[in-house]
Amino acid sequence: MTRILWINPVGTSAYDAPIGEELRREAAPDTRVDVCSLPGVGPQHLEWNALEAVVAGPTMGVIRWAAEQQRYDAAIIGCFYDPALRGARELAGAMAVTAPAEGCLHIAATVGDQFSILVGRKKWIPEMHENVVKYGFANHLASFRVLDMSVDEFQSDPQATQKRILAEAEQAVAADRADAVVLGCTIEFGFYREVQAQVGVPVIDAVTAPLRFAEFLAAIGADHGWRTSRAGGYDPVPPREAKWIPLVAPVLDIDPRQ
Amino acid sequence: MTRILWINPVGTSAYDAPIGEELRREAAPDTRVDVCSLPGVGPQHLEWNALEAVVAGPTMGVIRWAAEQQRYDAAIIGCFYDPALRGARELAGAMAVTAPAEGCLHIAATVGDQFSILVGRKKWIPEMHENVVKYGFANHLASFRVLDMSVDEFQSDPQATQKRILAEAEQAVAADRADAVVLGCTIEFGFYREVQAQVGVPVIDAVTAPLRFAEFLAAIGADHGWRTSRAGGYDPVPPREAKWIPLVAPVLDIDPRQ
Amino acid sequence: MTRILWINPVGTSAYDAPIGEELRREAAPDTRVDVCSLPGVGPQHLEWNALEAVVAGPTMGVIRWAAEQQRYDAAIIGCFYDPALRGARELAGAMAVTAPAEGCLHIAATVGDQFSILVGRKKWIPEMHENVVKYGFANHLASFRVLDMSVDEFQSDPQATQKRILAEAEQAVAADRADAVVLGCTIEFGFYREVQAQVGVPVIDAVTAPLRFAEFLAAIGADHGWRTSRAGGYDPVPPREAKWIPLVAPVLDIDPRQ
Amino acid sequence: MTRILWINPVGTSAYDAPIGEELRREAAPDTRVDVCSLPGVGPQHLEWNALEAVVAGPTMGVIRWAAEQQRYDAAIIGCFYDPALRGARELAGAMAVTAPAEGCLHIAATVGDQFSILVGRKKWIPEMHENVVKYGFANHLASFRVLDMSVDEFQSDPQATQKRILAEAEQAVAADRADAVVLGCTIEFGFYREVQAQVGVPVIDAVTAPLRFAEFLAAIGADHGWRTSRAGGYDPVPPREAKWIPLVAPVLDIDPRQ
Amino acid sequence: MTRILWINPVGTSAYDAPIGEELRREAAPDTRVDVCSLPGVGPQHLEWNALEAVVAGPTMGVIRWAAEQQRYDAAIIGCFYDPALRGARELAGAMAVTAPAEGCLHIAATVGDQFSILVGRKKWIPEMHENVVKYGFANHLASFRVLDMSVDEFQSDPQATQKRILAEAEQAVAADRADAVVLGCTIEFGFYREVQAQVGVPVIDAVTAPLRFAEFLAAIGADHGWRTSRAGGYDPVPPREAKWIPLVAPVLDIDPRQ
Amino acid sequence: MTRILWINPVGTSAYDAPIGEELRREAAPDTRVDVCSLPGVGPQHLEWNALEAVVAGPTMGVIRWAAEQQRYDAAIIGCFYDPALRGARELAGAMAVTAPAEGCLHIAATVGDQFSILVGRKKWIPEMHENVVKYGFANHLASFRVLDMSVDEFQSDPQATQKRILAEAEQAVAADRADAVVLGCTIEFGFYREVQAQVGVPVIDAVTAPLRFAEFLAAIGADHGWRTSRAGGYDPVPPREAKWIPLVAPVLDIDPRQ
Repeated sequence: MTRILWINPVGTSAYDAPIGEELRREAAPDTRVDVCSLPGVGPQHLEWNALEAVVAGPTMGVIRWAAEQQRYDAAIIGCFYDPALRGARELAGAMAVTAPAEGCLHIAATVGDQFSILVGRKKWIPEMHENVVKYGFANHLASFRVLDMSVDEFQSDPQATQKRILAEAEQAVAADRADAVVLGCTIEFGFYREVQAQVGVPVIDAVTAPLRFAEFLAAIGADHGWRTSRAGGYDPVPPREAKWIPLVAPVLDIDPRQ
Repeated sequence: MTRILWINPVGTSAYDAPIGEELRREAAPDTRVDVCSLPGVGPQHLEWNALEAVVAGPTMGVIRWAAEQQRYDAAIIGCFYDPALRGARELAGAMAVTAPAEGCLHIAATVGDQFSILVGRKKWIPEMHENVVKYGFANHLASFRVLDMSVDEFQSDPQATQKRILAEAEQAVAADRADAVVLGCTIEFGFYREVQAQVGVPVIDAVTAPLRFAEFLAAIGADHGWRTSRAGGYDPVPPREAKWIPLVAPVLDIDPRQ
Repeated sequence: MTRILWINPVGTSAYDAPIGEELRREAAPDTRVDVCSLPGVGPQHLEWNALEAVVAGPTMGVIRWAAEQQRYDAAIIGCFYDPALRGARELAGAMAVTAPAEGCLHIAATVGDQFSILVGRKKWIPEMHENVVKYGFANHLASFRVLDMSVDEFQSDPQATQKRILAEAEQAVAADRADAVVLGCTIEFGFYREVQAQVGVPVIDAVTAPLRFAEFLAAIGADHGWRTSRAGGYDPVPPREAKWIPLVAPVLDIDPRQ
Repeated sequence: MTRILWINPVGTSAYDAPIGEELRREAAPDTRVDVCSLPGVGPQHLEWNALEAVVAGPTMGVIRWAAEQQRYDAAIIGCFYDPALRGARELAGAMAVTAPAEGCLHIAATVGDQFSILVGRKKWIPEMHENVVKYGFANHLASFRVLDMSVDEFQSDPQATQKRILAEAEQAVAADRADAVVLGCTIEFGFYREVQAQVGVPVIDAVTAPLRFAEFLAAIGADHGWRTSRAGGYDPVPPREAKWIPLVAPVLDIDPRQ
Repeated sequence: MTRILWINPVGTSAYDAPIGEELRREAAPDTRVDVCSLPGVGPQHLEWNALEAVVAGPTMGVIRWAAEQQRYDAAIIGCFYDPALRGARELAGAMAVTAPAEGCLHIAATVGDQFSILVGRKKWIPEMHENVVKYGFANHLASFRVLDMSVDEFQSDPQATQKRILAEAEQAVAADRADAVVLGCTIEFGFYREVQAQVGVPVIDAVTAPLRFAEFLAAIGADHGWRTSRAGGYDPVPPREAKWIPLVAPVLDIDPRQ
Repeated sequence: MTRILWINPVGTSAYDAPIGEELRREAAPDTRVDVCSLPGVGPQHLEWNALEAVVAGPTMGVIRWAAEQQRYDAAIIGCFYDPALRGARELAGAMAVTAPAEGCLHIAATVGDQFSILVGRKKWIPEMHENVVKYGFANHLASFRVLDMSVDEFQSDPQATQKRILAEAEQAVAADRADAVVLGCTIEFGFYREVQAQVGVPVIDAVTAPLRFAEFLAAIGADHGWRTSRAGGYDPVPPREAKWIPLVAPVLDIDPRQ
C-alpha cells in the first residue's frame, strides 16, 4: 500500500473533500490518499505569489509532520505554482515530494511534443513559465492560454468552466500546434476526461497527474532507492536548523479505505 | 497485470535471459516482462549509429507485432540511443513505448538537479547529447563521463566494470557537481545498487528505469487515456503505408510467471 | 570532376529521373550526379518516421556501396528528415555525406537572418525541428508553415502546388518576418525559381541546396582534408562490425554525361 | 532624500547593526537606510530553502508595513536567494523592491562579460542558478565557486574568510575566465574592497550592490514612473486578499542621520 | 556633480539641442549633461549598419577626447544599436560608457517580466535582437513591433508619432503580453510620459533610460570601484595602438548650468 | 571565373602578399583572388575592438568600390571578428560577402560535432563568442583555447607558433572533446595542414575556409539567385544614404593569373 498526502496549501478545507474524492477515484488500487489543508483561516487560493509566501512556512511544517510523524510515502503540494518544493524536499527524508506542474509536465512532454498550459489569469504566467524552464520543458511549451477565470470561479459553474477549457484547448491544438494540453490549476479538476474526449489530445489534469507521478516516485524510491539526492541542492535540513520549522498538524480528510 | 515487452534491438539473444532476470526482479509485482531480440543474426550491439540504422526497420516490425498481435501494454526499445522511438510511437496504437534515455532522464532530473551520464566511449556522446536536448534536460546535464569500455566488455569482468563505474560516478559528484548518475548503456545492468550504496547519490539504471517508466506510462494510458498524442508528430502510420513495415516475430524470452 | 550520388531513400524509382534532370541542370559544370533508389519495392516516401526507420538499413548499405565500391566524392541522402546521417558518416570514409535540411539551413542562415520552412504536413514538424536545433539554427527559424499537402501530391498538379508554396512563402515574409524560405521536402522540387522571383526573397530548394553543399564538402575534403572528423561521434565503423551492414547496390539512374 | 529599508529576513537582529553601518557607509549621500529583521526568534540564516519558506510569510508582512505604513522609497530583501521577490513586488505599491542577486547580477554583467559567484556551500547553487537564469544572465555566468563555509562562519574570523574569498576569486579569473566576481551571500559583507584591490577585477558585494540598485530603482520610479508593471506577473494583491497577509512591524535599526 | 557626455554619433547637430533639453530635464539634480555630435557632415541617422560603420571610428575618437581630455564621468553612445560599445569601453579608462539598448533593457527587465521593443523599421530588428541576446534578455523579449517610420519622421509630426507609438504599445500589452514597452530609437524621445500614462505600463525611453543608467554606472564606479573590468574582453587599448585612434573634438552643446 | 576580393581591413599591406599567395594556392582552379588593404597608415591588426571601429568606415568604402566599380563576385572581410559584416552586406548588391568566423564555423560544425577555437589572447573571446552565438553554433563550441600570442607574433617565428597551435589543438581534442579545431585569426595562416596531419582532426584555417565559403556563396548566388535577402536586416543602403559612405580604392595585390 502506498500512502500519499495531498496538501491543499491554503487556509480553507473547502476543497479537501471534493479533491479527495477525485484523487481516490483516480489513484492506483493500492494507493491511499489523505487530503489536508492548513490549520487556521488563511488564503483561499494562491493566485498571488504573496499568498504563496504566506503559506510557505506552514506548508513546511506539514511536510515535517507528514514525513517524520506520519511516514507517508509521498506528499504533493497541491498548487500549480509548485510552491516551496525545494524546501519540502530538504525536509522530506525518505518521503517523495512532488507538485502539480512537475507531475503534469513530465507526462505532457512524453505523450506529446508540444503542450499548452491553460491558466486562469495572465498574471500566473511568469512564475509558471519560470517552472517550465526549471523542469526543462521550455522547448516543449507551445503556449500559455488564458481562461480569464479566477480560482474560485472554476467550480462555481462547472458547465461554463468546461466550455471555456474546451474552447481554449481546441485553440491550443489548432492555432498553437499543441498536441497535449495541461490544466494549469488544481481547481480545474473534474473536467479533463470530458475535454479530452472532445478535443482528441491528452488533457493532463493538475490533480490526477501529480498523484500518479507521486505514486511513481514513491515506488522507485522504495524499490530502487531512487530518492531525492542529498548531494546537491536538496541537502537535508540538519536538526539544529529544523527547530525553526515547527511541525504543523493539518486539517485532515482521511481516505476512508485505510 | 501489465504486460511489457523489452526489445533488445540486436541480432543476438545473448542478453535476453540476463536482462529478463534483471527486469523481472525489478518490476512491479503485477508486471510481466517478456524480453525479445531480433530474429536472424545481426549487430551484437549498437555502438555505431550505422548499426542502429540497420536494426531500425526490424525493430519497427517488432513494434507492430507487439502492438497489433500481442497487445502488450508497453514496449521498451532497449538501447540508450532510444533508437527509432518516434517511428515506434507512430505504430504503437494504444501501447506505450519508451526507451532507456527517456526513462532515465525523467527520473534523474527529478531526484536530483544535475546528473552525469556514464558512457562507454566518447563516440556515443553526440547522439546521446542530442537526446538530452530533445527531452529537455540539457540544463540538468552536469557531464558525460567516459568509462573507456565497449558494450561487450561491460559484463565480461563485472568486478572491473563496477570499479570503473564507481570511480567515474565518484568523480561526477566530486568534480562535476552531479547529484545523480545515469548509466548510459543497458548492458551496464547489474551494478547500480552497489555503486549507489557506495557513491551515495541515486544511480539510475538503464534497464530498470525505463521498465518502471514504461509501467507508469502504461498505467496512465489505461487509467486516464494519457497515451501518445496523435495530433502532432506521432500521427499514426495509416494502413496504406503500414504495408511497407512487415511484422517481425522476434526471438522471445517469456516471463515464466505469466 | 566531382562524382555525386543522390540517394532517394525509398523503394520506388519514380522520382529518380525527374530529380536527376533537376540535379544535372543545377549542378556545377564539372559535377556528375547519379541518382539512385533502393532496390525492391518499399515506402514511396518517408512522411512517417517509421518508414524512415524501414529504409535506414538499406540506405546504410547504399552508402557502403557508394563509398567503398564506387568511390563517389559525395552522397546525399535525399529526404528532408536527413535520415541516418550520423550512421552514413560513420561508413563513408573519405566520401562526403550530407542531406537536404543540413544543406538548406546552412545556406538559408547565411543569405538571410530568419527563415521559414514550408512543410507538407504538421506531422513533420517535431522531427524537423529537432534537426534545426541539432544544426544550430533554432534562433534563425522564423516559423514552420504547413502546405497541407502530402509528398505524393506535390508533383501531381504542379501549378496548384506552386500556388500553395507561393501563398505560404508570402505569408512567411509578411507575417513571420522571414527573409528566406526553405522548401522542406525534396519533392517540392521544380518550384523554387518561380516562387523566388515572385516572393522576392531567397527560396532554398531541397534538391539543389544539398547538391551544391555536397559539392562544397567534396571540394574542401579533397583540397584541404576537411573531411568528417573521426575523433568524436563519427568514429568509423570498424571492419568487424561492418559485416552487419551488407552492401546494397541500388537502382541507378546514371548521369548521361559521364 | 531616499528612504530605503534593508530587510534581514531572519529571526535574529545580530546582523542588523553591522550591515546597517556598512550600508550607511556605502550609500549615496541623500540616502537613509534603516535595517530590520523579523520579530520573534527564528532562523539565523536561510541556507536551506525550507528556512526561506518559513520566513517568506513574515517578510511579506514587513513589505506591507514598509510600503503602506512607512512609505519607504525602496526595500531590499537581504538574502542572495532573493526570497519571495515576486510576492513582495505584488504588495509594494509605489515602493521599489529588489534583492541581492538581482542587484549584483545587473552590475556584474555590465562591468564585465563573465562573472563568477562565490557561494558558501555547493548546496546553494541550484536555487541560485535558477535565479541567474530568471534574470537573464546564464550566458554571463563563468562559474559558481564554493568557499566551503557556512553563513555563520563568514564573520567569525574575517581574515580567514577574506583569504578564502581572495583565493577563489583569483581562481575564478585564472581558471574560469571570469572578469568580475560576485559575493553570493550578504554576510560576505566587508571584504569586497580589499579583495577587489588584490584580484584586480570588480568584486560585487551582496550588500552594497542591491543598495545602489535600490536607490536607482527608487529614483527612476519617482522621476519617470518606471515602477513595477502591474500588467503581468506583478498584478497587485487586491484588498480582499491582503487580509491574509498581516502587517509585521519588524525589529528596527534606524539610520541615525534621519 | 556627475558630468555626462551624450554622443549623437551622427554628422549633424540637429538633434543636439532638443536631446540636450530632454536630458537636462530628466537627469538627477547634480548631473550635468553635455551633448555632442560628430564634426563634419555625415550620416544623419544610423538606420543602416553601414552608416553605423562609418561613424564608428570618429565615435572612438570622441570617446578618447571625453575620457582623456575632458574626464567625463560617463559617456553614452546615443543610438539604440549601441554602436561600438565594446571598443568604447576599451578606450574609456575610468569613464563609464553605456548606450540606449543596454540602459533600457536592464530597466525594462526589472520593472516588468516581458517587454516589447518598438522599432521604426523591420530592418532594424536583427541587429537589435543580437544585442538583446548579448545583454541576456532574450527570454524577457515579448516582441519587436514595427512603427513603419524612419528616424527622420519621428519628430516631424509629433502627434502622429505619439499616436503610432501608443497604438503599438497597446498591442504589445494586449496581444504579446508585454508588461513593459521600450522605445527602440533615441529619436523617439519626448513621447514616453504621455504614452505611459495612457497605456498603463512602464514605457522606457531611449534617451532618459541610458542617461539614468549612466549616472548609476558613474556612481558605482566612483564609490565602489565597480568599473569596466580589464581582465577580459575590455582589456584597454595600449598606448602603442591608441595612436591609430585620433582624438576627435566633437560639435558640443554644453549644459548651461555648469 | 570567380573573382574574389580578400580585404585585409588594416592600414598595412604587409600581409597582402603572403596571404595572397596562400589564397591563390588554396582556391578553386577558376578562382582569381585579389588581396587588398586599406589606404593610408592605420592599425596593423584589430585585436582591440576600438581598432575594429576605426577601420569599419574605410572597409565599407572598399566594399562599395568592390561591388559597384569592380563587380567582384565575392568579398571577404579578412579578420576573425567578422567586422561590419552586416553593413557590408547592405552595400554589396549582388556581390557575396563573408568573413572568416562565418566561413570557418559553417565548415567546422559540419565536419565535426564540437569545435575548439584557438585564439591569440583571452581578450578576443567575448566578441568572438558573440559571433559564435549569432551564427548559431554555440552548442557546437567545445572551447576557446588561448595561445597567449599576439597577432604580430604568429608569423615571426613560424615553428614556435606551429608548436603552440599543435599543443593547444591536441588539448582541445583530449581535454575538451573537440573533434575539429578552428584557427581563430587570419594571421594563423600557413599552419593548418601540418597541424591537421599531426593532431588527426580537421583544422579549419581562417584564410582558406572563408575563401572556399565565399566561392560557394558566389556560385549559389550566380546559379540560383540565393543572394543576401533584402527583406530583413540586409535591406540595402538607399542612394540618398550611400553618399555618406565614400568609395575607397584600396592598396591592391592583384592575382597575377588574371
